Amino acid sequence: MVKVLGINGSPRKYGETFKLLLLALKAAKDEGAKTELVNLYDLDIKPCIGCLSDEQVACRYPCIYEDDMRKLYDKILEADALIIATPIYWFSPSGMVKNFIDRLTVFENMIYITGKSWVEGKVAGFIAVGNDSGSIQVIANLMAALNAMGFIIPPWAMAYFNAKGNVLEDEGSVMDALNVGRIVTITAKIVKGIKEWYIPYSKEQISMYKRLIMDVIKNNKSKQYQERRLKYEKLLSMKS
Amino acid sequence: MVKVLGINGSPRKYGETFKLLLLALKAAKDEGAKTELVNLYDLDIKPCIGCLSDEQVACRYPCIYEDDMRKLYDKILEADALIIATPIYWFSPSGMVKNFIDRLTVFENMIYITGKSWVEGKVAGFIAVGNDSGSIQVIANLMAALNAMGFIIPPWAMAYFNAKGNVLEDEGSVMDALNVGRIVTITAKIVKGIKEWYIPYSKEQISMYKRLIMDVIKNNKSKQYQERRLKYEKLLSMKS
Amino acid sequence: MVKVLGINGSPRKYGETFKLLLLALKAAKDEGAKTELVNLYDLDIKPCIGCLSDEQVACRYPCIYEDDMRKLYDKILEADALIIATPIYWFSPSGMVKNFIDRLTVFENMIYITGKSWVEGKVAGFIAVGNDSGSIQVIANLMAALNAMGFIIPPWAMAYFNAKGNVLEDEGSVMDALNVGRIVTITAKIVKGIKEWYIPYSKEQISMYKRLIMDVIKNNKSKQYQERRLKYEKLLSMKS
Amino acid sequence: MVKVLGINGSPRKYGETFKLLLLALKAAKDEGAKTELVNLYDLDIKPCIGCLSDEQVACRYPCIYEDDMRKLYDKILEADALIIATPIYWFSPSGMVKNFIDRLTVFENMIYITGKSWVEGKVAGFIAVGNDSGSIQVIANLMAALNAMGFIIPPWAMAYFNAKGNVLEDEGSVMDALNVGRIVTITAKIVKGIKEWYIPYSKEQISMYKRLIMDVIKNNKSKQYQERRLKYEKLLSMKS
Repeated sequence: MVKVLGINGSPRKYGETFKLLLLALKAAKDEGAKTELVNLYDLDIKPCIGCLSDEQVACRYPCIYEDDMRKLYDKILEADALIIATPIYWFSPSGMVKNFIDRLTVFENMIYITGKSWVEGKVAGFIAVGNDSGSIQVIANLMAALNAMGFIIPPWAMAYFNAKGNVLEDEGSVMDALNVGRIVTITAKIVKGIKEWYIPYSKEQISMYKRLIMDVIKNNKSKQYQERRLKYEKLLSMKS
Repeated sequence: MVKVLGINGSPRKYGETFKLLLLALKAAKDEGAKTELVNLYDLDIKPCIGCLSDEQVACRYPCIYEDDMRKLYDKILEADALIIATPIYWFSPSGMVKNFIDRLTVFENMIYITGKSWVEGKVAGFIAVGNDSGSIQVIANLMAALNAMGFIIPPWAMAYFNAKGNVLEDEGSVMDALNVGRIVTITAKIVKGIKEWYIPYSKEQISMYKRLIMDVIKNNKSKQYQERRLKYEKLLSMKS
Repeated sequence: MVKVLGINGSPRKYGETFKLLLLALKAAKDEGAKTELVNLYDLDIKPCIGCLSDEQVACRYPCIYEDDMRKLYDKILEADALIIATPIYWFSPSGMVKNFIDRLTVFENMIYITGKSWVEGKVAGFIAVGNDSGSIQVIANLMAALNAMGFIIPPWAMAYFNAKGNVLEDEGSVMDALNVGRIVTITAKIVKGIKEWYIPYSKEQISMYKRLIMDVIKNNKSKQYQERRLKYEKLLSMKS
Repeated sequence: MVKVLGINGSPRKYGETFKLLLLALKAAKDEGAKTELVNLYDLDIKPCIGCLSDEQVACRYPCIYEDDMRKLYDKILEADALIIATPIYWFSPSGMVKNFIDRLTVFENMIYITGKSWVEGKVAGFIAVGNDSGSIQVIANLMAALNAMGFIIPPWAMAYFNAKGNVLEDEGSVMDALNVGRIVTITAKIVKGIKEWYIPYSKEQISMYKRLIMDVIKNNKSKQYQERRLKYEKLLSMKS
């Protein structure tokens, strides 16, 4: 059985962000997942103080801070998938959500300690809601960040709403949120057994690949580069 | 066997973008994929003219334009994964790459014609290279766009380089590019059999979900909302 | 005399972000500005709880929270320009900086109370530093947010550094940071007297403009639209 | 008298993007500007081929390509302000608009030839329209790009619309577009006389600034850094 952890980054447990998250988690449950919802605004989560800039290996689970992230870290380790729901404040996630994201660095940075990101291969889904524009900017930023920690982004991993009124009256957003929950769960099941994604290549392998590529490049350069340079000379001789 | 299609969006077939794409494709091949590389700058790809804003169903495969995308469309349909490599021009993909992305709309928009995005469940990897900043902005934008067409983004789906000099001397970037190729291939194998991701929910299901959510919300609102409003009154009575 | 307020969003008062901010403030001072530096990590800044989603006018200066933003709000009101310096955490500003930005809403939202954003016409500059990619994504997001509050972004309003090592050894970044301080100051002097930027147009004016535009559109549509529709019919009759 | 050049990046001269651009240009005219509108889709604009990656000084006005940008380049040089209007295709500007932006590099890159960006100090405004999300992502990207070429972004430099239907029925968007035109014009008048923004600092000045900063940093580091390291040791000694 897979576990899906919903992260509510909205301070309002009756707002549109929260509604879409509930929908996604219900669909995940109906797909067979064990689900849990955490409200970030109920927790004390201190802002990251960037230890790794002083000392790379100082940023590590369970973090220098002994705050409520300690419990949340363990929930994340047990989860197969996260669904992050955030309100849109100034076209990006709320500061609360950002603090949560920043504090996930302890997992990714385990690369420098145990050779592996501890969130590698987990699945991520995203929900973003605001009165004004910004949903895709929020989702694109979160997507890139979580992917760079090792998360998988399944197809259609996003639900969003950029309007006033009750999101439940917007059938498209409701359907999208349900699918986020469903697809995140399906994907988590599919990849559950996979223990290794990113692999280090040996010095020898890297040298071998470099040689192969350099051969192609040399050949291409001899063909294409001279032709381009001729054009530059024409341009450079123009009077501007 | 899975097919991985590399899209080169750089005009220079000897530059750093191209090198990272070659690395990714070689690693894909070594993982068992059939690979092919397409150079966008060798093709005539007209800019999208936004037919769907006039008529939703007018945007459909194989597009109103009879240009070189016709052949490329068929390669994409056959591919299980795309690796899109772009130079970074002004912190975003080159106009050539953007034209390519815009023209992919014919596949996603098949939702309105056949009920399904024709690129749903394909896998995507990304390479971005520039002398200056911008790689993550490029990758985040592409990621969100392709995910919204139905593509899967596997873990560590990105390789980038933001410096001058030969990217092959940067071991991190080389390793990342190899992993993009490898992981994209592995993921394509895993999901190859899956025919359905996004599903429509029936009117009845949506009503049922809405009722469930509204019950939770009502309960939460009666608890939290009043408390918040009391605080507003205090603030609103302040003299500012 | 103009006042330039530097906002340090880095927890490390000896790091690269901080260095660039010091440079910018020194150049501002040399240009004749009064300067001050505030370290966000020394302050208690609570995360925004999105009051305006409950009640538009509840979000107003001086905010529902009585924390250290109260003092900072007054510094901002007195300042003619802000220079926001942030470390790059996961390709976006640190959660601390994001909380600061979110809490600025009380100024912009005065539109609904006094008819005007209280930060309109102030000048903004940006500094972003990280070991990895992301500087432009950070700056682009901050730029859009502050511009949407009414800030002016002068030319070359950004300095960034995406590498390891001492930023002071990177002449380009040093020069950029000095120019951020200088140009922000020059711009603040130029626009200091201007009291009004955004104006409301009357219903009558809006109607008049709408009619004018509709006339052009009708004419254009009769020319271009039919031609496009003819092409659609050809496409729609194809067998796909 | 100032000149405001409107760049229409939409293929539909009767669509919502075009309407907002017309509004902005009319408001600019009413503010006393000379205005002109250019439709990118009527022009042959070849994709940038990245000459500067081969040879920094090969990218220069009037570009290696002799296409319709030649005329447009001269219009831009004469203009005091640009208003760029783009449809939103996949959460970013259309490929056509991106080709236009990429080709502006010839102006910015004059830094390496004449010591100065030829678009420095010009004013920029932005319009973005789409059926779905993405407007702020588009505008943020364009803003960062143009600012990095030397453009000024005046307050409220954006108008956008992310919905279906006639944008002229959305009073907020109409008002925003009118203000973009007005404010861009006002700003262009204010800064018209200014010939110099970014300045090079001499080696001596840079050394002086570096020494000043290093003194502050040394002092701060001796205070704060040791305290932080002590905490790391505690963490590093934990069993994980």
